[in-house]
Amino acid sequence: MITVEKVTIATVAERAGVSRQTVSNVINTPEVVRAETRERVRAAITSLGYRVNQAARQMRTGRSRLIAVRIESGSDGINGSVLDRFLHGLTDAATLAGYRVMLYTAADDADEIATYDDLLTAHDLDGFVLTSTHHGDPRTSWLAARDVPFVTFGRPWGAPDTHSWVDVDNDAGTLAATKHLLKAGHRRIGFLGWPRGSGVGDARRTGWAAAMTAAGLDVTGLSVAVIDGVDSGAEAAGRFPDDLTAVVCASDSLALGALRALPGRAVIGFDDTAVAHAIGLTSVSQPLAEAAARCMHLLTELLDGRAPATSTQLLLPPSLVVRQTA
Amino acid sequence: MITVEKVTIATVAERAGVSRQTVSNVINTPEVVRAETRERVRAAITSLGYRVNQAARQMRTGRSRLIAVRIESGSDGINGSVLDRFLHGLTDAATLAGYRVMLYTAADDADEIATYDDLLTAHDLDGFVLTSTHHGDPRTSWLAARDVPFVTFGRPWGAPDTHSWVDVDNDAGTLAATKHLLKAGHRRIGFLGWPRGSGVGDARRTGWAAAMTAAGLDVTGLSVAVIDGVDSGAEAAGRFPDDLTAVVCASDSLALGALRALPGRAVIGFDDTAVAHAIGLTSVSQPLAEAAARCMHLLTELLDGRAPATSTQLLLPPSLVVRQTA
Repeated sequence: MITVEKVTIATVAERAGVSRQTVSNVINTPEVVRAETRERVRAAITSLGYRVNQAARQMRTGRSRLIAVRIESGSDGINGSVLDRFLHGLTDAATLAGYRVMLYTAADDADEIATYDDLLTAHDLDGFVLTSTHHGDPRTSWLAARDVPFVTFGRPWGAPDTHSWVDVDNDAGTLAATKHLLKAGHRRIGFLGWPRGSGVGDARRTGWAAAMTAAGLDVTGLSVAVIDGVDSGAEAAGRFPDDLTAVVCASDSLALGALRALPGRAVIGFDDTAVAHAIGLTSVSQPLAEAAARCMHLLTELLDGRAPATSTQLLLPPSLVVRQTA
Repeated sequence: MITVEKVTIATVAERAGVSRQTVSNVINTPEVVRAETRERVRAAITSLGYRVNQAARQMRTGRSRLIAVRIESGSDGINGSVLDRFLHGLTDAATLAGYRVMLYTAADDADEIATYDDLLTAHDLDGFVLTSTHHGDPRTSWLAARDVPFVTFGRPWGAPDTHSWVDVDNDAGTLAATKHLLKAGHRRIGFLGWPRGSGVGDARRTGWAAAMTAAGLDVTGLSVAVIDGVDSGAEAAGRFPDDLTAVVCASDSLALGALRALPGRAVIGFDDTAVAHAIGLTSVSQPLAEAAARCMHLLTELLDGRAPATSTQLLLPPSLVVRQTA
């Protein structure tokens, strides 16, 4: 026999030892609550299984309280886990805010735009969280032209900053990684990245180059580009000069390849995947749960008509998780 | 320049000189639209040859073409990726079948049941795919008592087989792993698993024990149980007898721990995670995309009234992915 007890905002407040107003603030305007209190309230919400009553809210607001996000078709192993972690964070944040998340897949931008139309018609969605923004992305202007509320995880590469977005400061990640290696005495530090043209990949290269240049070091011949993968990374790492002592990589997959091809050299990955944790790879970690919570918060501001007149852009700092490889 | 050739609700809205919402109303709740507007929208629908899609289907069939699945709160690294891969497969299969997937989180069974109630009320869901079935699971009987269509990924441990389910044959996975080690000449093969009481964990232990017994080998003192994790696995692996030469593990996390604690010994993991691929760990692979597609197929059979009179149970065979560690 299962008894479903009614957990109310008062129950949460009592458990967390705060006022009901504070609980409400954590749900609706988390930025006004101190981080420590926020965590305590969120822990109470999770442990009590508190859910904002959806049906009641929909009646009050005339909204479906349903948002949509794309999930990649299939799953590509090491790197796919980044968007999966963002999805977990987004679902948690949406649940806290009383929203549900609907998934869709799309083969390309045109297919995704056709899907928006279908979803808006069939399911009366409130808004979208877009991921994997890129140069020449047509999705944001389509949604903006139709006044559909949306937020992107990823800045509008090359397009005007007319919508709200959250991104992680990729340059800062590789800059910190490179500085860490410089501090350890390395001078011949390479960058193993992706072919030019990807906003994220180019930003990660820029951070490394900036740290090297600031240290007065020559980067000629120290940047190698390859399609992401462990095997491709190992192959490409063989192209570095022999006197190289350390490598900053654009992904953990490439870092694994570099470790295999260049034993004994210091290696730093990017994304702090489960693989990095498992094998002791030093890696740059993206604050994905935080990014997801911020996206959800910006979207609910838009939906509640509480958004500031101008769009909001948030660039979150990554952190370096130091383990054994550097 | 993106051209979406499909005639959409937006095209109809533009032609009729009304908002998208009005078109949607004409399709779903025509009684709220003025007669003159209704006629103009219907004329636009006819002249454009607009194929009323999901919304109209829902009106006709009384179904939302929406199914729900739980996503775990947070993400626990190595092993969490198994359910993420199932989710990717389920979304792909649902899209092919013309369904969308809605996500929810739940702290425990009672919270999940309360969520069912909320979802069924607020979003008119067609059915559920349940994951992580376990002994004493109250969720299936709750749904069955209310005639809500559902399929489980995971057999009904201990409960009657009254609903359709898909599972992976865990016993067969560790049996194959153990036979692989026996064939390579190992005789002192341990099992590193989870504490008794978990259906999946016990089944994985059973497969190992069956292979050992069939080979006429004594298993006394060769089974060690611990809470899942790399560090806990390493600690527990120290409890094996010194003459042990190989270990079959209930997860890749435990296998990583065993590799660290018992260098030089043969180790086989379970779940074939990205970590296994990255470090060359031999591991048992679950056919997750296949399992997801089968779940979706069984659910659509139920929803379309095409299901056989008795429920269907599918036990899919895992496969052993042989790499460097065994």
